[in-house]
Amino acid sequence: MFKAFTDQDILSFEQRYRTTFVNSLAGYKLPVLIGTVNSAGITNLAIFNSYFHVGAHPPLFGLVVRPDSVERHTLTNIGETKSFTVNFIDDSFLKKAHQTSARYESGISEFKEVDLKEEYYDNQNLPYVAQSKIKIEARNLSELEVKENNTIILINEIKKVVLNTDYVSKDGYINLSAQNIITSQGLDAYLKTDLITRLSYAKPNKMPDEI
Amino acid sequence: MFKAFTDQDILSFEQRYRTTFVNSLAGYKLPVLIGTVNSAGITNLAIFNSYFHVGAHPPLFGLVVRPDSVERHTLTNIGETKSFTVNFIDDSFLKKAHQTSARYESGISEFKEVDLKEEYYDNQNLPYVAQSKIKIEARNLSELEVKENNTIILINEIKKVVLNTDYVSKDGYINLSAQNIITSQGLDAYLKTDLITRLSYAKPNKMPDEI
Repeated sequence: MFKAFTDQDILSFEQRYRTTFVNSLAGYKLPVLIGTVNSAGITNLAIFNSYFHVGAHPPLFGLVVRPDSVERHTLTNIGETKSFTVNFIDDSFLKKAHQTSARYESGISEFKEVDLKEEYYDNQNLPYVAQSKIKIEARNLSELEVKENNTIILINEIKKVVLNTDYVSKDGYINLSAQNIITSQGLDAYLKTDLITRLSYAKPNKMPDEI
Repeated sequence: MFKAFTDQDILSFEQRYRTTFVNSLAGYKLPVLIGTVNSAGITNLAIFNSYFHVGAHPPLFGLVVRPDSVERHTLTNIGETKSFTVNFIDDSFLKKAHQTSARYESGISEFKEVDLKEEYYDNQNLPYVAQSKIKIEARNLSELEVKENNTIILINEIKKVVLNTDYVSKDGYINLSAQNIITSQGLDAYLKTDLITRLSYAKPNKMPDEI
């Protein structure tokens, strides 16, 4: 049955119900594992549900971070080093990825705790997830403050991408679905995807073609 | 074959290939139709691939907008009225939704051009998409400027939600997959989703359960 809920109705929901309801409305997202290291050399790995595209030229993406959350170690480490890794998640290590959201003490590396393997490139002290099929080296450029709820949006640049070129089409499209890379919804739901179609660039007076 | 590409490698790609490649790395997104009306009463409808969650209390979401793009009519209208609608997309009107990205002249309503029906609630002059299964009334609160690429992030509040309560679980989870609400990737790929699992809140020293 279709029903309308106002913001006042939503505010009156029981707190956990409301959190789940509103987070469901965030829709589909790309969950990623953010790998960092602090100045003492302790690595950190945390699942983020807030990766979003900001632009293609230069290649930029954003991350929404709550400073008082379990994500605080990641934020501190990025503040220290500016560099971090972004690792896409597939169904083969989904539970391990989710488990990185547990509130481990500082000084403990989630890589070891959840049994994901650290991998390094180019003699850099920057931990990637060996199991991940698409890995990005990123550099933080700036921070924006969302004053309405005291969150921070990190604006970041893609510095390097490691991926399997077998899944890159002739036109540059990277097929995530064929690699079982998952999407997430809300705080705890994970979904597989299946390509319906790609559609041609839209022009007035002509419906798009499948490409 | 796994291969590493630096930012310099990516810059050297042919322009269209590069755009497709980098946009693929944006991962999965929730494509939405943004409905607006200008002060002359002309409605506008545009597909956006940049809807993202900002917070649950209060319910906030962001939209990334390029001021010089086909999205400019939407941006102008939101600037005038502050109010707009967000309409989730399912596979039954996918091509029509994609077609709203064509560069129609001002004074032309995409609702009519692509054959999607306007719907109104509460005597407000704010166009929703009748076909859409989840509809949000939103109010723009503020704008953030991403200086690195001259885009704008609109920060917006959810004022009303219209949805089918048959798809809301007891704990508040809204099942998008069961309603055939689609996800998008890159500029032109649309995918269906299938729930793998929901996982329990993570705690140290215990792997998550399926819930």
